[in-house]
Parts: sequence; C-alpha cells; structure tokens
Amino acid sequence: MSANGLWSKRKAHKARRMERAATWIRDRRIATGDIVAALEALLEPGDRVALEGNNQKQADFLSRALARVDPARVHALHLLISSISRPEHLTLFEEGIARKVDFAFAGPQSLRVAQLLEDGKLEIGAIYTYIELYARMFVDLTPHIALVCAAQADASGNLYTGPNTEDTPTIVEATAFRQGIVIAQVNEIVDALPRVDIPSSWVDLVVVADRPFAVEPLFTRDPRHIHELQVLTAMMVIRGIYERHGVTSLNHGIGFDTAAIELLLPTYGERLGLRGKICRNWALNPHPTLIPAIESGWVESVHCFGSEVGMEDYVRARPDVFFTGADGSLRSNRVLCQLAGQYGVDLFVGSTLQLDADANSSTVTLGRLAGFGGAPNMGHDPRGRRHSTPAWLELATASGPLVRGHKLVVQLVETFHKGGEPAIVESLDAIEVGKKSGMPIAPVMIYGDDVSHVVTEEGIAYLFKAEGAEERRAALAAIAGATPIGLRADPARTATLRARGVVAFPEDLGVARLEASRSLLAARNIEDLVAWSGGLYKPPPRFKSW
Amino acid sequence: MSANGLWSKRKAHKARRMERAATWIRDRRIATGDIVAALEALLEPGDRVALEGNNQKQADFLSRALARVDPARVHALHLLISSISRPEHLTLFEEGIARKVDFAFAGPQSLRVAQLLEDGKLEIGAIYTYIELYARMFVDLTPHIALVCAAQADASGNLYTGPNTEDTPTIVEATAFRQGIVIAQVNEIVDALPRVDIPSSWVDLVVVADRPFAVEPLFTRDPRHIHELQVLTAMMVIRGIYERHGVTSLNHGIGFDTAAIELLLPTYGERLGLRGKICRNWALNPHPTLIPAIESGWVESVHCFGSEVGMEDYVRARPDVFFTGADGSLRSNRVLCQLAGQYGVDLFVGSTLQLDADANSSTVTLGRLAGFGGAPNMGHDPRGRRHSTPAWLELATASGPLVRGHKLVVQLVETFHKGGEPAIVESLDAIEVGKKSGMPIAPVMIYGDDVSHVVTEEGIAYLFKAEGAEERRAALAAIAGATPIGLRADPARTATLRARGVVAFPEDLGVARLEASRSLLAARNIEDLVAWSGGLYKPPPRFKSW
Repeated sequence: MSANGLWSKRKAHKARRMERAATWIRDRRIATGDIVAALEALLEPGDRVALEGNNQKQADFLSRALARVDPARVHALHLLISSISRPEHLTLFEEGIARKVDFAFAGPQSLRVAQLLEDGKLEIGAIYTYIELYARMFVDLTPHIALVCAAQADASGNLYTGPNTEDTPTIVEATAFRQGIVIAQVNEIVDALPRVDIPSSWVDLVVVADRPFAVEPLFTRDPRHIHELQVLTAMMVIRGIYERHGVTSLNHGIGFDTAAIELLLPTYGERLGLRGKICRNWALNPHPTLIPAIESGWVESVHCFGSEVGMEDYVRARPDVFFTGADGSLRSNRVLCQLAGQYGVDLFVGSTLQLDADANSSTVTLGRLAGFGGAPNMGHDPRGRRHSTPAWLELATASGPLVRGHKLVVQLVETFHKGGEPAIVESLDAIEVGKKSGMPIAPVMIYGDDVSHVVTEEGIAYLFKAEGAEERRAALAAIAGATPIGLRADPARTATLRARGVVAFPEDLGVARLEASRSLLAARNIEDLVAWSGGLYKPPPRFKSW
Repeated sequence: MSANGLWSKRKAHKARRMERAATWIRDRRIATGDIVAALEALLEPGDRVALEGNNQKQADFLSRALARVDPARVHALHLLISSISRPEHLTLFEEGIARKVDFAFAGPQSLRVAQLLEDGKLEIGAIYTYIELYARMFVDLTPHIALVCAAQADASGNLYTGPNTEDTPTIVEATAFRQGIVIAQVNEIVDALPRVDIPSSWVDLVVVADRPFAVEPLFTRDPRHIHELQVLTAMMVIRGIYERHGVTSLNHGIGFDTAAIELLLPTYGERLGLRGKICRNWALNPHPTLIPAIESGWVESVHCFGSEVGMEDYVRARPDVFFTGADGSLRSNRVLCQLAGQYGVDLFVGSTLQLDADANSSTVTLGRLAGFGGAPNMGHDPRGRRHSTPAWLELATASGPLVRGHKLVVQLVETFHKGGEPAIVESLDAIEVGKKSGMPIAPVMIYGDDVSHVVTEEGIAYLFKAEGAEERRAALAAIAGATPIGLRADPARTATLRARGVVAFPEDLGVARLEASRSLLAARNIEDLVAWSGGLYKPPPRFKSW
C-alpha cells in the first residue's frame, strides 16, 4: 500500500534499524557482550535518545555501553535524561557521541556540565523540572530510542522494575507508541515475574546487564547530622504552619531540615496532640527518617516517586501505608507522584541554598549547572487547581467573589552557611550563572511570588499575609538575622508585623528556644531508625557506624 | 506474624471481600449475569468507588449493575468519577446507593446534579480539573473499588483498551497498588490480545459486559455549522497569534471556533506560507476537523487524551502522526496528554460561554453544575515550567533579571449568544451558582490573570501587553462590541491601545473581513472530511446527511 507507506515512515525506519541489528538479536534478546555492536547498528547520528539516567536507578550498563560506541558511526545524539548523575553520561559529550542534552537535574555532575558547555562540547536544549521533560516526550521530543532499566524480564519481554519503577513506564510509553525502539537492561531473566510493571507489548529488546543496575540512597539522612537550629526550625514549622493551617497532605523536600520535622512528629508533635490532625497523607520517597512517625501511627499513606535503598523490607511489611503490588514490593511512579505533589497535596516544604529579598530561591551556585529536579513542580501555586481544602482556603487573603486559595509553599533556609556566607542575599548566583551559560532565563528554582512562608532559625515570615511587595520584603528581612538583608529590618516595623501575624518569632508561636535540643528527635542516628523499624530497615554500609 | 497483621489491614480486608464474593468468582472471572450479586458481596457501605465514568468511554455495564444493587446492603458510596455522563450515575444517588461525589465534569447531567444537591441527596466532595482528581487518588482518595472498562481481556486478565485507553491505567494503578479491588468490564475475552494496555498483575476481576461499552463522539464538529464570524475569528487567531508568536505546539479546546481554525490551516494558513512554521505538534483528541491539515502535511504529531468514534481506521493509517501501538491502533492516555497540554505545549485556546470584564470565564450557567473537564489544567500559566521556547519567551513583557515567559492562554468568545444575550458580562453566573450550591469558591473555569489573549469577532486583546488591571479592562472592552462592557470603551483610548499593539482589529492584522467566508474552510461538511481522509474516516450515522 503506497498510501500507507507515505504515512508510516517511522515504522519503516524502525524496521530498517532492527534489520541492521538482526545479527545481534535472537528472540528479542541481545547478548550481554553484543550490546555495543547492537547499539552501533540500531542508532543513527542525531537520534533523540532517552537514557534512564533517573533520579535514582541508572541504566548504567546501557550508558556504559553507549559510551563505548564508535563516534564515527554514532555521533551528535540528542540526550533526554532526567538526571545527569554518572561520569559516563558526560563522557558521551567528550567523545562527540552526544551533542545536545535536555535534562532536569545534574547534581554530582553539575561542574562538568558547566565546563563542557563552556568548551562548546555540549549544547543544552533546556533545563526542566522532571515532568516537563516527560511532557515534551509526548509533544516535540519523542525519543527514537529509549535505554531503560528494570530488575527482571521474562521470556516474552515483560518487565519487573521492582520498587524503583520511577520514570520507566512514562519513557517507554513515549517511545514505544511513536515507533521508537525500547531497549531494556535487566539484572536477570526469570520464568515468572513477581508482577508486570511494563507489558512486553511496549518493549522491543532486552539485554541482561553485566551487573545489577546502580542506584544511590539519595533520600537517606543520618539524624546524627541534624543540629539544634534545625530542631528549632522544625518546631516552628510544626506549630506555626502544620498545626496553624491544619496541613494533612504534603511533600517534604530532601534535607536535614525536613528530616528534623519528620523526627519531631512522634515526640514534639505527639505532645501537642497533633497525631491524626496533621501530616497524614504524603507524596514522598520512603525516607528512613519517616519510620518513627509511621511506627507511631501518624501516617496514613505515602505515595512514592521512587524507592530508597535499604527500605525494601520495611516498605513490604507496611502495605497499609505504602503503595505496593500483589508481590508485596513498592510500586513507585515519578509522574504520578509529581502529579500528587503538584495538585493533590496542600503543602510543599523544601530547603534552599540561596534566597533573595523577594524570596526567590535557587540551589544553583557559580560554576555549577545543577538543574531543578522536582522542586519547581511542587513548589509553586498550581493555578489549574479547582478543588478546595481547609488549608488551601486558609491562604485566601484577598476577598471578593472570585477569591481562591493558595498552596502552602514553604522555604526553609538558615540565614548563614557554615562558612559564614549569608544564605539570604541581594542577588541570586543563579542570575549570573544563567547569563554566563547563555540561558534564556535565570535558573530560578522557586519564584518568590509562589512562596507563602519562609522559615529561618529566627522565625516565620507569613508572606501570603503581607500586603504588597514592599511589606513582603520587610517580613522576610525581619527573619533574615544578621545577613545584609536582615540588617535592613526596622525593629519598629518588625514589631508591627509581629503584632499583625505577618511575622512570628519562636516565642510568638509558643516555641521555647531552650527546648530545641537533639533529644527531641525520635531517632538520633541510623541505628535508632533501624531499631524503630524492628530491624526491617537495612541501611547501606556507608551509613553504619556500629 | 502478628506484627505484619497490624500493618496489612487493607490486604486482609480485601481478602475478606473476595472471600464473600467467592461463589461468584471462577478463575478471576464473574459471569455476566452474576455481576449484581458479586457487587453486593464485594462492596461495603461508605466505600470509595472509582467508576469509569470517563470523558469518553463508559463502564456502563458496571454502572448499570451498580444501580441495581440492594441499597439496604450497599449504600452511601463515595463516587470518584471523571465525568457524570450517564443517567444511572445519578440514579445511584436517588436510590441512596451513593451519597458523595468527587468529579470533574457533568455536562449532560449537570441539571440533575444541581437538583439532587438541592434535594440533599447528593453531597459534593469537590469539583476538579481531571488530573487533580487522579492526583488525589494517590493521596487521600484512594479507591477501595475501581470499576473500569476495556475492549478485551485474555484468560489471565491482561486488558486491551483499544484506542480509548484514556484514564484506565491511572485509576487502576491507584486502586491496585493500595489493596483495592479492580473490576474490569470487557466486550469479550480473547485468546491473544492485540497488545497489553494493562497487565493482569493489576486486575482482580473480569466480567464480560452484556453489550460493548458506550462511547460518544464528543469531539466531532460538523463543519456545516461553522459560520462566517467564526471564520473571521479563526483568521485573526492564525495571523495575530499563531503567526505572530510562532506557535508550534498547542492544544485546542472543543468547539466550532477551534474547528474553524483547524479547517483554515490548509487554505488560509497555506496561502500565508505558514506550513511547517506553526501548529506542528498537538495535544489533542483525533478531531475529524484536523484531517485536512494532516493530509496537507501540516501536522507532525498528535498525542491524544482519548480517541474519537469513527476515527479509528484513519488514525491506524497515519502512524507517523498519531501515537499507535504495535497492533496499529491508537494509544491514548489522559494523564499524560494533560501533562503534555499543561507543561509541554506553548498555547491553549478554548471557547467560553461567559467572560467578565477581567477575562475570568466559565461555562457554568444558572441551575447547572457542569464542572471543568481539562480546561483549567491547560488554560493556566504553569508556574512550575522552567524550559523556554520562543513563543513562551515572547510573552515575557516585564524585564529584570528574573523575567520569565508565559503560556499563551487564549479565550475565544463571540460578544453575543444566539438569543441576543451578551457573552461578555459584568458578573459571571458562576458566582451565583457557587453561592447557591454552597461551594467554597466560585466555579471559575479560567481565571483572567492567566489569560494572555481574548479574541472576539471584533478583534484581539493582547492582555499580556496591557499595563495594569485597568488597562487590561480597557483592552477587553475595546473588543467587546455592543455588550454593556463594550459600550464602556472610549474610542480615543482604543485608538491608543491599537497604536501600541495592545488591541488589534482585523485590519490591523491584515485580515480582510470580506474574505471571511465559509468557502475558506478546507471542508464544509462531514462528507468533505470523509473525502479528505480517503474514506478512512467513518462518521457515526448521526453526522451523515448524505
């Protein structure tokens, strides 16, 4: 049918690629040792390649193989990758195998990204929050090839991801249904999968990896490193925000500040009689520091973006709390959890490295192109939201017939970094970084006009209650301590703001500074967390000190 | 293990339900005639039930069965339903089987919803945009039971949805992984599925329906009904918005206004030399009125929320354009397409029934509780967006180091309805409806401060260019014709706004009013669309006039 041929160029193209690689394929399988040759046959210069370079699990066998293809045959690839986290991701650019990249996060590799950009070896399509990047995979950035990662496959190519389902179904869907080629690395092939996370109808090729896929315990925070100012801040958040607004559904960013909050719920929160009244439903990875709150009956549900190394058995033993499959293990899903975190919960709280006088914040610092991860998606007021909850309505300060609520977007920041550098600054480093890197807009993580509350060790600025931009700045300055911004605060003005409830110091919230001690933490080290879990939590060796 | 029992109450509860229904279950299957008895055994009073009650396909066998259960046994259910579209959905409330509902749209049943609410027989949890409702299914509204719909199942319970995948995977995921029970009605059981859309690991029970599931051609607009003012408006949108801002990725709402735009691309758009420059990548259902643009080579890709009755063969024959499976048929996915429409495209354009002086709009009118559908999600500026595109950056009017772009949110409205009622009004009916129904906030569909452009038959108001709220109102008044709002326009002020490009009349855009004739439409009736498709489009009988 010629008419059909005219409209199925993609199918024909896929068939040609598969034909070229036929030598290396038997029963939809590529032998481990043949992967480089197979990739050379399947890929073409300029291809858009979605590499599972995830926030957590890594298709590292495939990324290492890709870094070994002959750049004369395969070059100028356009990489779509959530998280640039492994050295070989950037080797691809050094070798010319890849040329352009669209990504969301580049934590550990952010220095090298900036360097390669300066050297003209890497071109940035755009930097995203996670789900924007996936969104564009269904619009104008459909992958030609997806290199993904699963725990197991069966003979027909069904995949079991285990607890780290994360982004795999989304990337595979974007590729498979637009005549792209889906290649999955698996740790092993088994006769029967514990459950099917991705049907074989969506998978073209399976290859057994040389070793199990890499995954890092990114969400584990050792309570040993929580210091007393963080305990104080956590107490203020619990009293001044969670209790005050009746926050039942929420997301916590990663960090010691939010870990402190999690560890205060069963102690400080319990004493305040808040169990069942706040913090019931979570969009969150299985943070080990949430174990004491779960064990104390605080937590009704946790939906997860991904999993966390060492938490597998614990999660499996708590199916009332976590989303788990018929096989018993966690089902995570980054897109759906980001959606839950955007539209389904009332509060986002995260820490930042820099905040300006208008509460704009960024974790980008000079010489690093770190990206955004999930924070911009959860740390903004979702204007498409139409349902009301009590906490959301509480933030409706304007009146009039078209009043609506506002998400609680809370930024935590200590006024000074350890080295004595102020964290509340005149101008974000992000602006300079954006200019130097030729970015069309500055890489701001969370915009000040979305932020409802800023919390420092000095107090809380209820920015949503401030009238006008100038008063917002005054409220922020009032809790900015001895930073240049803080020194601008006028004590008389601050007193008025406190009287009006636009600013609160610990004493205004009934939080006793002297009480802010590490002894309030429900767990003071990893060993305590293991004990709370009844031995179900199995921390990775690096976190063990006993 | 007693410790385990303490934390797996949901699993135990599910097992008890399944045990109660054991008589009616063989090999995960319920016989067609046993469904009412099985539902009576499986359900419990107060259960949260997600009923697929979709925007398009309907699990109508299951909803009819649910309406027949004994209210003495099953009552006070909490219904989670995207779209209240079938009479029996409300019979559930009349009978007391259901009591509370969370929903997104209630088009055809909106009168009855309002009536039942007034009678105290129905309680509204909240009204949502689609993906908010799904988001909460992963937070605090996890379903106990999901009643879903597929085309086929195989013996082990894998499901094939066919082109109307829509919401099924999302609802099933929320239910299956939180120890809920997933019951799927299918048209038939087959030996081998064309493809697997939902793995059997996620499905508990399958029942063959008494007849194929119901689905309505909601997105079909017969070009016969497009009138010349709509052609004029469409010409203005193409010149004054799509060409002007270089809009390559977009979503169109349903309606004759947007159908007119689709039908002008291959004629008017072609003459302007815009093919390849605008309207390449779409987040859209397979609108029949898009066929001429596709056939003329305008469209690179279309990702779909759902399918459209009659478009199956056409879509199957155009795999370069649509997302299709290895079996050849469409793969739709409402969550992912809403995500694409929110974060992945530059423009949303939709028609509204009422617009106020500040460009707030709603399709809610007195006595009807229609809900929102997908418009609020796509018709707002997504503040979590961090990537730039030329069109998005064009709307950055402010300056300064933290400038960012803005989504193009375009509202189309004719100044008067057919009966002579003004469509641009002092106060939205939605405000009155909200008050009367005791809703916490007025049911506004799109908020004025998100709207970048308003287009009437008089011209375009480039609201994003207006300086301050007062000037926005003046710009809108300038194109509001003879409505009370329009009569307020000061001609001298309008002249200034036109000179500054804040308002444009057709002549300012080089659009000749006299040219705005139906003869510009690439198809003037359904038969033309069929001809464009080479006979592949098979319109439902009601649309046939030949």
